[in-house]
This record gives sequence, C-alpha cells and structure tokens, in this order.
Amino acid sequence: MYQNLNPSTVLSPVPVVMISCRGKEGELARDNIITVAWAGTVCSEPPMVSISVRKSRLSHGMISESGEFVVNLVSEKLAEACDFCGVKSGRELDKFAKLGLTAEPMEGLSYAKGIAGAPVQLGCVVREVKELGSHDMFLAEIVSVRAKEKLFDSKGKLCLDRAKLVAYNHGEYFSLGRKLGFFGYSVASPEVRQKRMGGGKRGSAKKKKRK
Amino acid sequence: MYQNLNPSTVLSPVPVVMISCRGKEGELARDNIITVAWAGTVCSEPPMVSISVRKSRLSHGMISESGEFVVNLVSEKLAEACDFCGVKSGRELDKFAKLGLTAEPMEGLSYAKGIAGAPVQLGCVVREVKELGSHDMFLAEIVSVRAKEKLFDSKGKLCLDRAKLVAYNHGEYFSLGRKLGFFGYSVASPEVRQKRMGGGKRGSAKKKKRK
Repeated sequence: MYQNLNPSTVLSPVPVVMISCRGKEGELARDNIITVAWAGTVCSEPPMVSISVRKSRLSHGMISESGEFVVNLVSEKLAEACDFCGVKSGRELDKFAKLGLTAEPMEGLSYAKGIAGAPVQLGCVVREVKELGSHDMFLAEIVSVRAKEKLFDSKGKLCLDRAKLVAYNHGEYFSLGRKLGFFGYSVASPEVRQKRMGGGKRGSAKKKKRK
Repeated sequence: MYQNLNPSTVLSPVPVVMISCRGKEGELARDNIITVAWAGTVCSEPPMVSISVRKSRLSHGMISESGEFVVNLVSEKLAEACDFCGVKSGRELDKFAKLGLTAEPMEGLSYAKGIAGAPVQLGCVVREVKELGSHDMFLAEIVSVRAKEKLFDSKGKLCLDRAKLVAYNHGEYFSLGRKLGFFGYSVASPEVRQKRMGGGKRGSAKKKKRK
C-alpha cells in the first residue's frame, strides 16, 4: 500500500515566488531576482514569511546586506520568467533587463524593489537569519503589500483567484484548477455552501462524505 | 494600477496539510489532527519543514510534549476532512473517529502517527520552536517519508502529480490544474520541452524532473 522513501523535501504543493532584492553598495547595489519554492507564511500577527536561500547565491548576499526583500507572487503569465530566475544567476546577467521587467520602489523598504507586473508584492524586512544546513532561512516581517487593482471586487475585497497564481509540485509548475471549497465549508450550512460555491459543478452539489 | 493593502499574510498559493500528532501522557496521549496552511519546506539538507501553530491549540501542546508530528499531504478526496480538522478542536471530539480515519505508526517516530489514506506522509522531529507572535513555529527535520505505491511509475520514480493534491489560495481550496512547465523549462531545448511536456495535458508527462 505504501512505499518508503528516503527522507526528502516532498511537501507539496508549495508556493513558487520571485524574490526581488538589492544590496546596499558596490557590486551588490543592483536589482536582482531569485526564484524560491522554499517559502511560507509563518505567523499571522505580525504577518511574517520565511524564505530559504543557499549561501552561495548572489541574492543571499544582497538580502543579508540590506535586510530586505520583496516577495512577488507569480501569475501564469510570469511562469516562464519565474523559472528562468530559478536557473540563471544574477552574476551572469541582469535578469530585470533580460526579461524586460521593471523594478518599482516598495513602501517601507529602502533597497529592495518590487517587480512591476507581479499580481501581488509583499515588502519584507528580515528579523532573523537561521543557518539550517544547505539553506539559510530568512525570517521576515511583511511591512507592506500591494496588489493589482483588477484583483479587487466592487466591495474592495481582494479576490486572489483572479490572479491565476502558479503552484509548484515536485519539480513542476501547475496552474490552480477547480475550486474545491472555502475555509469552513465542511461545517457550513447548505445555503452558505451554495452561496459561496456558486453554480460550481462540484463542491456545491457534492454530498458531505466524512461527517 | 496597484492598490496598497495593510500588511497581511497573502503569500499564495500555500500548502494545506493535515498534521497528525500525539502527546506523551495523560490527556495528551491520544491521536489528534490539526490542519495548517502556515507550512513550508525550509531546508533541503537536512530535509526540514516548518509548521506554525497557535499556542492555544490542543496540537500545540501535543507537539511540544512529544517533539514529533506527521505532515500528511492532502488529496482532493481528503479536502473536506482537511477543512474539518481546521475548524474543529480535538478538545471537543476525536477527529480520527469522527472522520473514520486510521492512525498508522510512522518510522522514526515514537508518538505521532500518520493518517492512513493520505497520499504522502512525512515523519518529522522538532529541532526548535520559535515564538513569533500569534503563532509558534516548529522547525523540524523530516526523518521518514512514505508514499502510496500507486504514485510510483514503473521505474520507481515518485509521480506526485498522480496524488491530486490540494492548494490553499487566500481562504479557498483548489485542485491543481494544468501543467505549465518543469524546473528548467525556460532554458530547455525544444526537444526536451516536447518530451517533458508531452501532449500538454496534466499527468501526460512521462519523465520526472532531473536530479
């Protein structure tokens, strides 16, 4: 029924995000992008994320120096650029220039800039760095957030499903597919389920199986 | 073009996983499940994950006491059970019993057990707990992994796209949709792209990622 594997990083799906960053001076005082999948939300109050980066990466030096980075969420349209930023080093080329991307100043940050065109950008200030082994984990507080205007509905609610974000699943990029439910749907009344799931084929019509 | 938001936890999509755990003695010496979306891979070598849990949760006490937990990946079939474990407390009911789930001993762990039926289970040993605010972050090493046999191809490669995993996107659960690419596809030759992307439909790729 089950087969054992060597201990490995198979948590999936995980986010895949483009981290934009910039050092303070000299060689590091230029904008770079690194793609990371070892990223996650780690706290709600204050809002915090962690990203893990190998010491050998150019971006590691930049983030360590400035104590800042921007998490740029990745839409399907940015998927290929995202992959490119995960395989090429900023030591070899200017990724912003190569990909025709623009760096935009981010509220609350002095060095790192966001990537214009990314659906959502999170400005982050590093609170702590932890050496874990192959990767160092940057624990950071989210100090500013901006999202494309088209992602808000008429009531001003952020509708992130409109962003067509990309998930990373064991070495492959996937679009998000069918909406299966919403937080709390397993205990919601049929009326609420119907309302929240709309006319969806599944979810709304599906019977509760496991109660 | 962009609209500012208050700093908040909008990193998306994120994993949504069922964490099974068990304390050592007394009231805590029973199997429980908590659903978390604040989870991520944080290191490749050693393989490590982090999960963040509020101090008030029953599972927080169990994991703190035993220093163990199991990360159970969530398939579409388990989505509703997963949601249920995110809204109900183990103080009120036995979630395994209520959901008809079975706890299975996990290699390398003495207390926490995996959830039978989850496509992949990661046995984790806590290395450090960090108090961040609303949540405590459990940094843990993955000491054992098992996956359903049907997820392996004839060459023994783990094909995680067969697991039909669930992603969490700003309060909603989604299936994974279309395969957009593979790590390195932006710089791959047309031949490799063709071979790896197959007919373009999900699950049609024959070969898995490199490395």
